[in-house]
Amino acid sequence: MRQFLPATAATAAICVLALTLMAATARADEGPITLRDMGSFHVGGREVVVSGKPVTEIRRTPTGPLTKLDPNGVYQVEQTYVQYFLPANRRGAVPLLLWHGGGLTGVSFETTPDGRPGWLNYFIRQGWDTYNSDAVERGRSGFASPEVFAGQPIFLTKIDPYERFRIGGGAGTYSNDAAARKLLPGNQFPVEAYDNFTRQLVPRWLSTDQAITDAYIALVDKVCPCVIVIHSQAGLFAFKAAQARPDKIKALVVVEPAGIGDADKAAALKNIPVLAVFGDYFNVDARWATLRKTAEIYFDQIRQAGGNVRIVDLPQMGVRGNSHMLIMDKNNLEIAAIIQKWLAEQPGLYK
Amino acid sequence: MRQFLPATAATAAICVLALTLMAATARADEGPITLRDMGSFHVGGREVVVSGKPVTEIRRTPTGPLTKLDPNGVYQVEQTYVQYFLPANRRGAVPLLLWHGGGLTGVSFETTPDGRPGWLNYFIRQGWDTYNSDAVERGRSGFASPEVFAGQPIFLTKIDPYERFRIGGGAGTYSNDAAARKLLPGNQFPVEAYDNFTRQLVPRWLSTDQAITDAYIALVDKVCPCVIVIHSQAGLFAFKAAQARPDKIKALVVVEPAGIGDADKAAALKNIPVLAVFGDYFNVDARWATLRKTAEIYFDQIRQAGGNVRIVDLPQMGVRGNSHMLIMDKNNLEIAAIIQKWLAEQPGLYK
Repeated sequence: MRQFLPATAATAAICVLALTLMAATARADEGPITLRDMGSFHVGGREVVVSGKPVTEIRRTPTGPLTKLDPNGVYQVEQTYVQYFLPANRRGAVPLLLWHGGGLTGVSFETTPDGRPGWLNYFIRQGWDTYNSDAVERGRSGFASPEVFAGQPIFLTKIDPYERFRIGGGAGTYSNDAAARKLLPGNQFPVEAYDNFTRQLVPRWLSTDQAITDAYIALVDKVCPCVIVIHSQAGLFAFKAAQARPDKIKALVVVEPAGIGDADKAAALKNIPVLAVFGDYFNVDARWATLRKTAEIYFDQIRQAGGNVRIVDLPQMGVRGNSHMLIMDKNNLEIAAIIQKWLAEQPGLYK
Repeated sequence: MRQFLPATAATAAICVLALTLMAATARADEGPITLRDMGSFHVGGREVVVSGKPVTEIRRTPTGPLTKLDPNGVYQVEQTYVQYFLPANRRGAVPLLLWHGGGLTGVSFETTPDGRPGWLNYFIRQGWDTYNSDAVERGRSGFASPEVFAGQPIFLTKIDPYERFRIGGGAGTYSNDAAARKLLPGNQFPVEAYDNFTRQLVPRWLSTDQAITDAYIALVDKVCPCVIVIHSQAGLFAFKAAQARPDKIKALVVVEPAGIGDADKAAALKNIPVLAVFGDYFNVDARWATLRKTAEIYFDQIRQAGGNVRIVDLPQMGVRGNSHMLIMDKNNLEIAAIIQKWLAEQPGLYK
């Protein structure tokens, strides 16, 4: 092929132009994904030393020899896993980071439980360098031994998210018989795939908020300036990271944040545009009403310090039926498009 | 743009042809990756019921309300996580599945600890529909409570893989001081990134072999016929899956398998071509010599039943210095290319 190289280089230039024009007219949720690169890394964490524990012998595979297991020594703990996808047609001026909610992993943003594209593919297709992570102690970040993490992890039954994430309408709405489950009227959760959704659940500790925050700040130091898009529990981590690194976060999208930053540090966010997105059924779920009220008080504190928080109440926009898991609800890409539109309106973030 | 559609469609056809020809001449480990689609799913597992445990109240975020945590009920457990990448320029006739080793996750096949491309990107670039998974209870597969998994998980110190994976030469070669660590002569492990490698370690149980095997068989039932490429502990799971579903596995590549199948079922593999790859230093590590001997006895049983097992001894081919972690050693893509060449030689597997 070598003798044809100049010709193919010219063809390539024409093709890149033609295909770029065509890509701009394609629907954002379909067609091929072309990446400059993809990969993963772990970031953050610390070393801890464990000592004074008995050495044992274990068989690591049934046909393998007995081998020493010495639990004493140095452990690497509390790092966070990050997978990245860098689209060829880059349009975001900075990377976009996706931080998932409690009891889950970055899988939340991949394919939905009923097999539709998730927000990860959506934002890559929009031209964002996208970094999808697992919080410390979840998923591919790994977890540490009882000597390191205080307490036991909590495990979620199949009942728990159904009744607590505004899919059913609270206690007593779940049944082991899928046909007998009660659903909030008009709910957009792909309820026929609820059983499959529960395969995504992972345990979590209640003692690791600081470790998760620290590793996410290490991630911000590594890849930002950036935009951060969070769901649920990660509100806590994103607002804490924004307090710690206000100059590195160019926009913050908080989707039903279950946690907030510190009131006395709200002023740190005064130059970070914030978009907060809330789904439906807050009037029938006292817990979510409380979490939202807490967030809105914090948003007022940011505003009083000169910051800008825009609240998107989806039902007020005519977008009804969203559960807490709106990132995978049937209209998940419609909501992603609302976020994308807002991001594109922020000066200098998108071209 | 609508009026230009016929013209751009023609341009697209020419460009696809031109770019395909150019892609065929590009180096396999660089250049853009174009995907028809990418996503993830969980497969397999079962439901278990836990009862008789006390109900407690927990605060899930620092500013959230107290909420009920009822550990009684139905749990989804023992599913396996799978992420897939489907290249636009598909050349593999069947999907290629990557199954990682013990104490690790699918991250093993992504970027290497020193930031080079892993086998995942390599096989995607070769045109294989590639499925990279986390074994049950590792990574994004999630793990179950002590009521479900017998015993405690084992955690690996930073010392353990260094001394046990033929990086250092056994006990006493690791030091907390990176400069003082002893290295097997000529070792190809990216030792300057060893500390970063230990961020990939995850705990594992010693009681979950059957659950892992069952979920992998569910994966085979979902996406195969296929090729399976495994590392280390996953030898056990792949040979067990091959016994159970011999017609669905068109080739099996076992990279330093630490586990094997059942001798009395070796005949089930008689129509599955097997490639076994071994690195260096087996003469200085009694444990690995034992594991390899066990595997080679099993290979003879497959051969005696009419099967075909080819052993690649890398040092005998002049490829020296490979640790047990050869999937991320400095020459990892050279080894991937040996596997790719063998796969392409199997009738009907690659076009």
